[in-house]
Amino acid sequence: MSLIQRLRDSVGDAAVLTDPDATEGYARDMMPLAPAGRPLAVVLPADTAEVQACVRACAEADVPVVPRGAGSGLTGGANAVDGCVLLVTTRMDRILELDADNRLAVVQPGVVNRTLRDAAAAHSLFYPPDPSSLEWCTLGGNLATDAGGLCCGKYGVTSDAVFGLEVVLADGSLLTTGRRTVKGVAGYDLTRLFVGSEGTLGIITEATLKLRPLPAAPGTIVAAFDSVERAGEAVNRVVRAGLMPSLMEIMDATSLRASAEFLRADLGAGDSSALLLCQSDAGGEPASAELDAMERLFKDTGAQWTHATTDPAEGGLLLRARRVSLPALEARGACMTEDVAVPRTRIAELMAGCERIGAQAGLTVAVVGHAGDGNMHPTVLYDGASAEQYARARGAFDAILALALSLGGTVTGEHGVGKLKTEWLERELGPVSMRVHRQLKDALDPAGLFNPGALFARRRPAGGRTP
Amino acid sequence: MSLIQRLRDSVGDAAVLTDPDATEGYARDMMPLAPAGRPLAVVLPADTAEVQACVRACAEADVPVVPRGAGSGLTGGANAVDGCVLLVTTRMDRILELDADNRLAVVQPGVVNRTLRDAAAAHSLFYPPDPSSLEWCTLGGNLATDAGGLCCGKYGVTSDAVFGLEVVLADGSLLTTGRRTVKGVAGYDLTRLFVGSEGTLGIITEATLKLRPLPAAPGTIVAAFDSVERAGEAVNRVVRAGLMPSLMEIMDATSLRASAEFLRADLGAGDSSALLLCQSDAGGEPASAELDAMERLFKDTGAQWTHATTDPAEGGLLLRARRVSLPALEARGACMTEDVAVPRTRIAELMAGCERIGAQAGLTVAVVGHAGDGNMHPTVLYDGASAEQYARARGAFDAILALALSLGGTVTGEHGVGKLKTEWLERELGPVSMRVHRQLKDALDPAGLFNPGALFARRRPAGGRTP
Repeated sequence: MSLIQRLRDSVGDAAVLTDPDATEGYARDMMPLAPAGRPLAVVLPADTAEVQACVRACAEADVPVVPRGAGSGLTGGANAVDGCVLLVTTRMDRILELDADNRLAVVQPGVVNRTLRDAAAAHSLFYPPDPSSLEWCTLGGNLATDAGGLCCGKYGVTSDAVFGLEVVLADGSLLTTGRRTVKGVAGYDLTRLFVGSEGTLGIITEATLKLRPLPAAPGTIVAAFDSVERAGEAVNRVVRAGLMPSLMEIMDATSLRASAEFLRADLGAGDSSALLLCQSDAGGEPASAELDAMERLFKDTGAQWTHATTDPAEGGLLLRARRVSLPALEARGACMTEDVAVPRTRIAELMAGCERIGAQAGLTVAVVGHAGDGNMHPTVLYDGASAEQYARARGAFDAILALALSLGGTVTGEHGVGKLKTEWLERELGPVSMRVHRQLKDALDPAGLFNPGALFARRRPAGGRTP
Repeated sequence: MSLIQRLRDSVGDAAVLTDPDATEGYARDMMPLAPAGRPLAVVLPADTAEVQACVRACAEADVPVVPRGAGSGLTGGANAVDGCVLLVTTRMDRILELDADNRLAVVQPGVVNRTLRDAAAAHSLFYPPDPSSLEWCTLGGNLATDAGGLCCGKYGVTSDAVFGLEVVLADGSLLTTGRRTVKGVAGYDLTRLFVGSEGTLGIITEATLKLRPLPAAPGTIVAAFDSVERAGEAVNRVVRAGLMPSLMEIMDATSLRASAEFLRADLGAGDSSALLLCQSDAGGEPASAELDAMERLFKDTGAQWTHATTDPAEGGLLLRARRVSLPALEARGACMTEDVAVPRTRIAELMAGCERIGAQAGLTVAVVGHAGDGNMHPTVLYDGASAEQYARARGAFDAILALALSLGGTVTGEHGVGKLKTEWLERELGPVSMRVHRQLKDALDPAGLFNPGALFARRRPAGGRTP
């Protein structure tokens, strides 16, 4: 029997797409720079047993499997490779359980992040990880990439919010990791080995996630500075003072101007070099105290102006300038968006370096980022119609990665490696760590079935093993 | 050259012990039930290069290496196996860096938990994991076991407090994992694969740990109940109300009486079946509000009495009843201390079940535990001089493990598997997970050099691989 027929038998005819017009829409995520191939088929299993059947069929046919959620990724991690089966989890979209007394939820991988947030909020509970794509990204993708977001400085990232997983392995068997208890140390931490493994070790078919009490509606403070150095120093002072803002974002002058234009609003930052946007969700008197303390520190650091509000609606409007920054920049031309992270104390150096790199390339580099956790998103602007500008932009993109590493940082804070940064992963981790990575990959997926080309640069030595 | 001579050349003569009188003191941790063998030698390396040299020498001689910190473990995880080299990290006891602005510390494995806490406090920072042995246990051991403590319901366990590690692998090479940034997703989460791996995958020679702002001195509330069910319901109500006490401990009647006797104090719980001890470190008004809310909930649940104080000294005295519970029980006879964890909502069922198991065995089972995270330490009391009572106590010990699993729990909440619960690990995880565990062990330590008999039951199939 052909593979396609086996897949049809496994998931039903309607859940196997082979027409290129239909499969093309699944072949790429949101990162245009990463390579993408043409899938043999797209399958949309409805449950764990169907995922197992698809994996077994592909394993026997020696056809690679690329898992995919909503396709909101920014590294090509879910991009097709030629001849692969794209296994799309969006039909597995049920919240199986929400146990408020034990503060946990059991979900299928296709549940949209926002859907879980809303379901948790109905029980006065909170699922912290909040990637910018939370309105449409799936939890399966969040788990595969260990997604972050804006609240991570205070509440951690996806791997901090997982009790356990159910995972389909390369031989089709079903692994259960973790537990439902707050504490538990029985065996290796397999849960966190699979979280962030970008679909290279198995396919997550269920997750038990940690919820927290819903925090109070946040109060907001905005502060403008005449230099990124001063804004960076203000971030340091907030940390040094022992404050834990629930959000602390930074924008440079280019992003500010782009957002102001995009929103047709005067953000009051006409001659500023950097804006800090911070929130406290401590509630009531503690929130006011935290906002007051930040305002004092910002003024002491020489802020041009500050503005604080405890009105959540006004706070939301202020934050909009940050949330629209990427679309606002895209309205100006093509964008290459970075995802480096540096120690919090090196943010100003990174921003100054990005300006220098932009000047050297003759291009603009705009910087926005999560100042609270050092995860910055410098964005190289270029003319999408010019191959020469594209090449210069790629050069600037790489120079920013090298800069982040030289500052003691990482080439990816929250987006992942995917098929975009495999060589940079080797550069960051070095040969011993890469050897351990390959040993683990070979131990769990010896034939290289899952997501070839992601994390590991693709090479198939004669008669060799993955990847 | 003999192995002993190579070890002497590696670490110096004085740091290699072979006299049984000297090595005997290192052969066991604090758990008398776990098997222990006779080491060939004890080595005390002074730095990472010496650890590498020892590991290489042992690998070439095919002599197993058992890593050991202070020996405060409760599962025989650091117990010698016959003919092994015990690699003791206590001489590697320096805090290499304390970076207050990035809220991190870089430590060697032999640093005592308390030493780091004190160093952090000098910068108004806080290292949360607080195992009961914090006065003398080492951070290396905390990392190897993913140690917990009393504050974990609010602040997490050791694996939540690690940025990265330096690890000596089975071939003597040096692996660096993780990073110094708050966020970072470059590659597999190797850090958390090694944390909690109980010395079976490598030897941790350095760790970069996360610090938090030092919380306020805690306020304390104590409440007595006439049944464990009512106390369990009170815990549920605290969780349901969205409260996050920094500590929530429970003691049953037997533990209470033992502690009262031990302290020669009237704990005011003469006819009570259970005591809850809770703290809030939210500081000032928020702490008072949290304590008030708990007091109301406890009264609504039918507490016999409650007593709240914001005086840290008085709170410390109240907490002493909990802290001395194990020595207080040991004053009454031999003890087998359990370390199960259940979902928070099942605590009362576990406690009632322990009483039933004790009655069936004709022995007393006292229960204390971390109610805030469901990690309970039932302790079977028996006459250490009676082989027959020992056998009945072992039966009760196993029955409690089975009970915890039947309640959706785990056989170890924070102590680990060690050489004590290898069969129970298989029972909890099942064959697929055990296969994955063995695949990972074989990938990283194919010769079974590190800590044989820990995590995996010891068997050496003819010509087979580990473990």
